[in-house]
Amino acid sequence: MSDRSEIGSGQRVVIENVSPAVDGGRFPIKRTAGEVVVVEADILADGHDPVAGRIVLTDEKGKVLTAPCLEVLGNDRFRGEFTLGGPGRYHYAIEGWIDHFSGWLAQFQKRIEGGSADNVDLEIGTLILRETAGRAPKRIAGRLTRASDELMRPGGLSGAKSFQRALRIGRLAAPLAREYPDPDTITRTPKAFPVEVNDPLARFSAWYEMFPRSWAFESGRHGTFDDIILRLPYVANMGFDILYFAPLHPIGATHRKGRNNALKAEPGEPGSPWGIGAGEGGHKAVHPELGTLDDFKRLVKIARESYGIEIALDIALQCSPDHPYVVEHPEWFRRRPDGTLQYAENPPKKYQDIYPFDFDCQARQSLWLEMRSIFEHWIDQGVRVFRVDNPHTKPFAFWEWLLSDLKVARPDLIFLSEAFTRPAAMRRLAKVGFTQSYTYFTWRNDKWELESYLSEVMNGPHREYFRPNFWPNTPDILHEYLQTGGRPAFIVRLVLAATAAANYGIYGPAFELTLAKPREPGSEEYWESEKYEIKQWNLEDPESLAPLITQINRIRRENPALQSDWSAGGGLMLHPIDNPLLLFYSKRTADASNIILVAVNLDPYNTQIGWVDLPLDRFGIGWDEAFEVEDLLTGSVWSWRGARNYIELNPHHLPAHILRVRR
Amino acid sequence: MSDRSEIGSGQRVVIENVSPAVDGGRFPIKRTAGEVVVVEADILADGHDPVAGRIVLTDEKGKVLTAPCLEVLGNDRFRGEFTLGGPGRYHYAIEGWIDHFSGWLAQFQKRIEGGSADNVDLEIGTLILRETAGRAPKRIAGRLTRASDELMRPGGLSGAKSFQRALRIGRLAAPLAREYPDPDTITRTPKAFPVEVNDPLARFSAWYEMFPRSWAFESGRHGTFDDIILRLPYVANMGFDILYFAPLHPIGATHRKGRNNALKAEPGEPGSPWGIGAGEGGHKAVHPELGTLDDFKRLVKIARESYGIEIALDIALQCSPDHPYVVEHPEWFRRRPDGTLQYAENPPKKYQDIYPFDFDCQARQSLWLEMRSIFEHWIDQGVRVFRVDNPHTKPFAFWEWLLSDLKVARPDLIFLSEAFTRPAAMRRLAKVGFTQSYTYFTWRNDKWELESYLSEVMNGPHREYFRPNFWPNTPDILHEYLQTGGRPAFIVRLVLAATAAANYGIYGPAFELTLAKPREPGSEEYWESEKYEIKQWNLEDPESLAPLITQINRIRRENPALQSDWSAGGGLMLHPIDNPLLLFYSKRTADASNIILVAVNLDPYNTQIGWVDLPLDRFGIGWDEAFEVEDLLTGSVWSWRGARNYIELNPHHLPAHILRVRR
Repeated sequence: MSDRSEIGSGQRVVIENVSPAVDGGRFPIKRTAGEVVVVEADILADGHDPVAGRIVLTDEKGKVLTAPCLEVLGNDRFRGEFTLGGPGRYHYAIEGWIDHFSGWLAQFQKRIEGGSADNVDLEIGTLILRETAGRAPKRIAGRLTRASDELMRPGGLSGAKSFQRALRIGRLAAPLAREYPDPDTITRTPKAFPVEVNDPLARFSAWYEMFPRSWAFESGRHGTFDDIILRLPYVANMGFDILYFAPLHPIGATHRKGRNNALKAEPGEPGSPWGIGAGEGGHKAVHPELGTLDDFKRLVKIARESYGIEIALDIALQCSPDHPYVVEHPEWFRRRPDGTLQYAENPPKKYQDIYPFDFDCQARQSLWLEMRSIFEHWIDQGVRVFRVDNPHTKPFAFWEWLLSDLKVARPDLIFLSEAFTRPAAMRRLAKVGFTQSYTYFTWRNDKWELESYLSEVMNGPHREYFRPNFWPNTPDILHEYLQTGGRPAFIVRLVLAATAAANYGIYGPAFELTLAKPREPGSEEYWESEKYEIKQWNLEDPESLAPLITQINRIRRENPALQSDWSAGGGLMLHPIDNPLLLFYSKRTADASNIILVAVNLDPYNTQIGWVDLPLDRFGIGWDEAFEVEDLLTGSVWSWRGARNYIELNPHHLPAHILRVRR
Repeated sequence: MSDRSEIGSGQRVVIENVSPAVDGGRFPIKRTAGEVVVVEADILADGHDPVAGRIVLTDEKGKVLTAPCLEVLGNDRFRGEFTLGGPGRYHYAIEGWIDHFSGWLAQFQKRIEGGSADNVDLEIGTLILRETAGRAPKRIAGRLTRASDELMRPGGLSGAKSFQRALRIGRLAAPLAREYPDPDTITRTPKAFPVEVNDPLARFSAWYEMFPRSWAFESGRHGTFDDIILRLPYVANMGFDILYFAPLHPIGATHRKGRNNALKAEPGEPGSPWGIGAGEGGHKAVHPELGTLDDFKRLVKIARESYGIEIALDIALQCSPDHPYVVEHPEWFRRRPDGTLQYAENPPKKYQDIYPFDFDCQARQSLWLEMRSIFEHWIDQGVRVFRVDNPHTKPFAFWEWLLSDLKVARPDLIFLSEAFTRPAAMRRLAKVGFTQSYTYFTWRNDKWELESYLSEVMNGPHREYFRPNFWPNTPDILHEYLQTGGRPAFIVRLVLAATAAANYGIYGPAFELTLAKPREPGSEEYWESEKYEIKQWNLEDPESLAPLITQINRIRRENPALQSDWSAGGGLMLHPIDNPLLLFYSKRTADASNIILVAVNLDPYNTQIGWVDLPLDRFGIGWDEAFEVEDLLTGSVWSWRGARNYIELNPHHLPAHILRVRR
């Protein structure tokens, strides 16, 4: 191995336990533009000589951007930090070396104290400074040379006093001398640790998912891109950043699914948008009834420029039997020995309207390149946020190649992984380059489950690369809690998603209109799911949660504590509350200037009361100090004093508090 | 990086979180000959295809020794194991691949259950088996081909029954087919994980340290190797495996230290054995009064062959001012600007009798080679166990190079690191190749300290490479607990060292004769330390602890539970006992066939009583089952029933129980 010791190595310093790192630097840690990265490492050497170290941050081309020194934490541990620039891939390495001059200084001081200091000590210190000056840039070299000359001059003093003077001169020179070690003696971590810097939207975003075809302004008509342009104020007013569309490509006719996932569509039924591809085109085409590619481009531009909204596309790498690829590239699909194409199947479930690509095929190189061209095509139309459908059914190596490749030119791209699968696979996808990830949040509804899951995703080691995006519902998942809990259940899930996670999303208007009817008892599918039919929504419904959503997104935008999942010194913290149906947590900024307390009554039927215990010291509040908490949902203000406080939540009024601490 | 994804990679399997590994495989895990290594890894792929994996164990030359398959633990986790051969360096890698035939089989079964199986399914299975046969060795290929033929034959059955028959044939073939994947699709961990296999003595050893010069049979004379040969029965009868000598080289006269570390020796005083080197020679010579090199070789041979004792040498890489190196190799020492040599110094402490080597010197390559030749010289005399003095004051890179190099020819060598320094440095020395390590045990005397320290060294992650060796005393350390606690304190520390750690040692006869007087109050140095004078010991002292030591070493040899620090499924476990002065722990073998319970009264003055809670299920004992515990120190037997049991220890009788569970 390259980092093993060779005979006569002059590198006496070793560097260990560098953090943060993912799998020892195999994958990047993820941050967003402008964030501060705090780095720690063990730096040690033989003997008693002090060591020093620095971080060396480089950009993609290897250019050194900054090289801040590390500070001593004790017990061989060091810490330093750097601030990140814009999106892109960076690397940091750690360097360590013996700080000979500080070592001499410490020894000299001990010898003065022991009464054994002599002029030879001064000579040694002088020599070290002179050598150091020889390695320093001109301006620094001058200062070091002057210090070395001064060290030997008695300055009119003699004996102990002249030594004290030298000690003072040495102390002034030491921080300067520390930074110019003999390059041959510097130890550098053999591997540099990658850092992927994303757009801030990767850290803090609110997603709104819709099926564009259901948003026509007149009933009985297929929605169009122009309809959506007119609907943008609705979405923007609620405070969403990302408007995410179900696939908008031509839909195949062969084996098209009907209402409620019926095996056969009736004439006129539109089919599932995930049955991608027909005579009109495939993944690069738009469904003719939605409009043209130019209409779409206009929508993307208006959304961004007039409303600050990014349009996100759903990329589902699969084909309907009518997709042009099926004829043009039969080599990309698996064929059964009888010559028929293999449709997607998870027995007893069959998806005869979907042909998966065969990523094991011999022609996979051309397949991968074509898949890349799909993303490039949409990037060319102005899209920079993608939600990827079932990425866990395509090779991890494919995603690692594809996403790295795309991000070279466009480091501001955002990819949301829709992988509802085993934890190791979900995490691997995040490691290989997905920016955000769907999670198990939808199925975590009890207090115990929520506490355990929030600890894991917000405070566990995987947060270095796995960014959770919490969804209370999706077109595929209507959880039993929502089916049975009524309006309070929807509010509970909304508050949890939007305050616990900095990234969250809803599938609307099913969410704000509190649609709760399942296809059948025990199913998580919607009754008359929008996946198989075109809807008309009554957005003016007075019972709509839209005003509450608007309020919550405003609270998110006004409170920095809710804008990141974690930070060194801040982040999410669970607090004990003595009722198994009440959940209580806080989020705070690293400097505790913004502290949000969230109390949620998980029981959608009954009022629950409890006493919460707050770690006031972590909030910078004295144990007997009075402070106020303001409910940002209702405007109520309470005066609290001490760690233990009373909570009462009536779900039929509001099942949650979002409290800001005021001092 | 080499393990990043290339376009069109056919390796769909990824391997993560491999254990055991030290720093991701940078350093070897440590085991001893004949041990079983249990390996775990996450192995996963996209989609629903099952994956399979194996461990590939290779020897130093890259020859594959064994390639056992891994078994599924669930949630993408796999486990396997292999048994190690003799001492040496091995590597293990993990391989993973898609198990296509098992995937087909699972799909086929689901289709049968769903009623959609057809003959095309059988064709697909047949094709997979035939392809697999093409990759298998002849004998296996024949079996796979027969199975593939059988799969297609109805065997007189039809419809569902013929499918059931095919399913049965498939299940028989699956384990065979699993092992012959397409080599291009196998993923292998990019790095193989090193395993250092030591001699079993590295795992289980009892050390006895002595100053040979004090062991003359007649008083007033310098001890000789021949005296030691006659003393071997004394050491062997006590049950020690390793007899470790303070340095036995010629001792310098310049600045020789006198009695009680006096700055100047009086005429006739022998000096410290660590003041190595004089006219008669240096690190490769023996002190003339001890005898000749041939005498020493005879002693090593007799100790090994007649008493099963290894002679361990103390290697202190430093020189007295009179060492031949000082004249012959001035380039290896640091010189002050006034021309004087830099002696060892840790102000206000000065060691004018010791010149350290300058490992920073320009001539370090020749220095390192000469240091290696010192070890080689003693290896040539038959020594294979070395205690290394202050290794933390020499570069880690030096030790990594030296120890790796020496072990290539002699993998049975054992090196004990005497590094009483910061944890990171102690650990780094263990990582770079030291076989055993001194610890903080000597300074851990309270219940809280002991419980915390035992958890750390016996059950923490560092146990993969850091083998603790517990010493109740050394010539440099007479802890206050021994100074003040009398005979009970010595017994407490002996029992703790010998039962908690599989490797332990004492400095005798100071230990068995319970020498407890410090040089001055507050000092950990012995009064009239043997380091500076020649002693006469009364080994016949009726108060000697030698009989108890004999008994404890016999208990260690008779109870496998005490012969290793840890094992998967066994090892040390702390048990709650309701008295802060009582400590209770167990050690057991992995199969729980040998269970030792140790109770220690840490109060050397008063009887202490308490109730211990035992995890009977971990011992394979029912909650209401009666069992016996036999005190191996006294022969007493108690009948116990249930988890909660009474302990009473009178320190003036015996401050400890060593109980063996009998069923």
